Amino acid sequence: MQLEKPAEVLLLGPGPSPVHKRVLEAMGQHTLGHLDPDFLSIMNSTMELLRYVFETKNQITFPVSGTGSAGMEAALVNMVEPGDKVVIGVNGVFGRRMVDVASRCGAEVVEVEAEWGHPVDADELGKTLAAHTGVKLVGIVHAETSTGVQQPLEPVVELMREHDALLLVDAVTSLGGLPVAVDRRDLDIVYSGNQKCLSAPPGLAPITFGERAMQKFQQRKGKVQSWYFDLSFLTRYWGAERFYHHTAPINMIYGLFQALEMIKEEGLEERFARHCLNSGALVAGLKALGVEPVVEDQYRLPSLITIWIPDKIDDTEVRSRLRREHLIEIGGGLGPFKGKAWRIGLMGNGSQRENVEKLLRALSDILNQLGHRCSIKEALSETMPLYQQHE
Amino acid sequence: MQLEKPAEVLLLGPGPSPVHKRVLEAMGQHTLGHLDPDFLSIMNSTMELLRYVFETKNQITFPVSGTGSAGMEAALVNMVEPGDKVVIGVNGVFGRRMVDVASRCGAEVVEVEAEWGHPVDADELGKTLAAHTGVKLVGIVHAETSTGVQQPLEPVVELMREHDALLLVDAVTSLGGLPVAVDRRDLDIVYSGNQKCLSAPPGLAPITFGERAMQKFQQRKGKVQSWYFDLSFLTRYWGAERFYHHTAPINMIYGLFQALEMIKEEGLEERFARHCLNSGALVAGLKALGVEPVVEDQYRLPSLITIWIPDKIDDTEVRSRLRREHLIEIGGGLGPFKGKAWRIGLMGNGSQRENVEKLLRALSDILNQLGHRCSIKEALSETMPLYQQHE
Repeated sequence: MQLEKPAEVLLLGPGPSPVHKRVLEAMGQHTLGHLDPDFLSIMNSTMELLRYVFETKNQITFPVSGTGSAGMEAALVNMVEPGDKVVIGVNGVFGRRMVDVASRCGAEVVEVEAEWGHPVDADELGKTLAAHTGVKLVGIVHAETSTGVQQPLEPVVELMREHDALLLVDAVTSLGGLPVAVDRRDLDIVYSGNQKCLSAPPGLAPITFGERAMQKFQQRKGKVQSWYFDLSFLTRYWGAERFYHHTAPINMIYGLFQALEMIKEEGLEERFARHCLNSGALVAGLKALGVEPVVEDQYRLPSLITIWIPDKIDDTEVRSRLRREHLIEIGGGLGPFKGKAWRIGLMGNGSQRENVEKLLRALSDILNQLGHRCSIKEALSETMPLYQQHE
Repeated sequence: MQLEKPAEVLLLGPGPSPVHKRVLEAMGQHTLGHLDPDFLSIMNSTMELLRYVFETKNQITFPVSGTGSAGMEAALVNMVEPGDKVVIGVNGVFGRRMVDVASRCGAEVVEVEAEWGHPVDADELGKTLAAHTGVKLVGIVHAETSTGVQQPLEPVVELMREHDALLLVDAVTSLGGLPVAVDRRDLDIVYSGNQKCLSAPPGLAPITFGERAMQKFQQRKGKVQSWYFDLSFLTRYWGAERFYHHTAPINMIYGLFQALEMIKEEGLEERFARHCLNSGALVAGLKALGVEPVVEDQYRLPSLITIWIPDKIDDTEVRSRLRREHLIEIGGGLGPFKGKAWRIGLMGNGSQRENVEKLLRALSDILNQLGHRCSIKEALSETMPLYQQHE
């Protein structure tokens, strides 16, 4: 039996995002050996392209052979040693996950919490760093996929330099959709995932380590608790030596290479502008439908928009009708947002005017049928000026 | 720029093995959401097909989201707690790797070594178990990819039951090519990799846990040191609950599903017989070329054949000419076999009469040019009776 052709569902959830057919075509190419000279040259190009997207000169920049959370684990197992003091900003699922992973590395974790839907407060972070001397690393989520909040990074970086701590940034839902700018912002360790704004299929976690991070790594007292994610092997495999560690996921790397090529073709600035434009239009349209965004303008991610489910509207009914009748996927809420909010991704290829309009139409159809009166005409006319301005 | 079409290199090394175009086609299908009902049903079918290939009824049978070594790490981090006594058979790279991974889990590791090219001696294993009371787990490599040795499992299983220890088996280079037979042999934990006898692209590690293993897991005192590989999450994601843990590598699972379907279409017994036939023919042909296998008949893997490099023949010259002039990849030796032995994989789709003959021709060409006199006619006539017997 051949795999049944999957339905062409439009992926406007929290990821995976829509994968372009050029990327899918790359995924299906002949599998080369993992030490084949032609494959080694694809690895080199992929690292070069990742440096472009991360906006970094960091030598140690490569995709971890696992999904986004493998990137988080790879970062923490290498950077943290038992007893290290670590501060983590928690304002959603992924900050919470960082706490869990860091604790499993034996870190002494201090949390700086913020309410869901809000960024972590830099002042509070500063107070925590002042109260706990000798903090080795601070972990923060740049783009909280569970809430749609963008964390301002500059004030956090300032604190790091002041307290001589490393900054670890989760850029899973930002890389390729909004500026991460590793070198300009002076971030120490940043990881991401394939399947958000890079629009490659899930399965790889791009990661980059700066000089300070590598120094901390070289001064480790003990072995990394994970063999699979041990940077001392990974850097030798992805470096000039090509020391065999594990068999790289060849076809996944074909796909990532192709997705990154397409980002370069578009240009980072153009891509960031596109993400802003379409998320702005979506929010304007949604408001006209009587649907309110969760996050205030200044902290709202252009890649992931969280919205309150209107009164008396059933979460799963709307989502399953969107999927069944309109072939559109959006995401449900997690944690305190479960049943209360939806998560709409306009990531990578997903961030298109066509998709914004398609979703507004489908949503207004279903909402009207369920008794929430709203006008698609008004919604579309709210998006119009934004698109016209841009032309 | 579009990814350049990779050269159609015939993969007869230690993996990856040749991927069928039906599998590549599946890899390039539209990416569904990781919680999409259609994808969940592909996950279910994949687990069912894995149970078929592992020959097990084990509920906990799924692909780990990483390459083969991620399977090893997933097995050990879940099964081993700090201070656990663990015995590991070491007769090549992968046994050695198990020691490293288990030590990083805090195990008290006792090694039972054997010479490269030979299986681990069951008697010696028995003595070690008798000398160290309270051993929790024994790790053994069924198919040593670095040497081409097949480890007889039955005597090891007997020892396990006698000493009440769990048996962890590395079946990376055996699953789908020779009987692993989890239930019949009563193996506790078995992991494998996509890219050997299953002939899917690298990137997933099928794994199965039996009842005794799950009991040990449930009695753990502490958390698993890895969040990414923590079985308590993975079983909830792959189980009925579909609890979100990480975003599964969708397209990789399409590919694995398709590769497993093709194994079922062929039938396990037929597939095992095909692997035996072709490796037998290859060895007969090689001997006629004056090239001797490393491993004696009774322990030689049908999926991976290690051969001594003939006198005065340069390892890398032959391999790079095979790759350049004949578009064939074979593997070099590792560790003590470096520069001394070649590793030829006849795995999954790679195990074909056509490939055996192609490799013999290419090798005899190059060897003759380098002054090692041999006759391809004689080599092919040595393979003939085996193929005729089979017809």
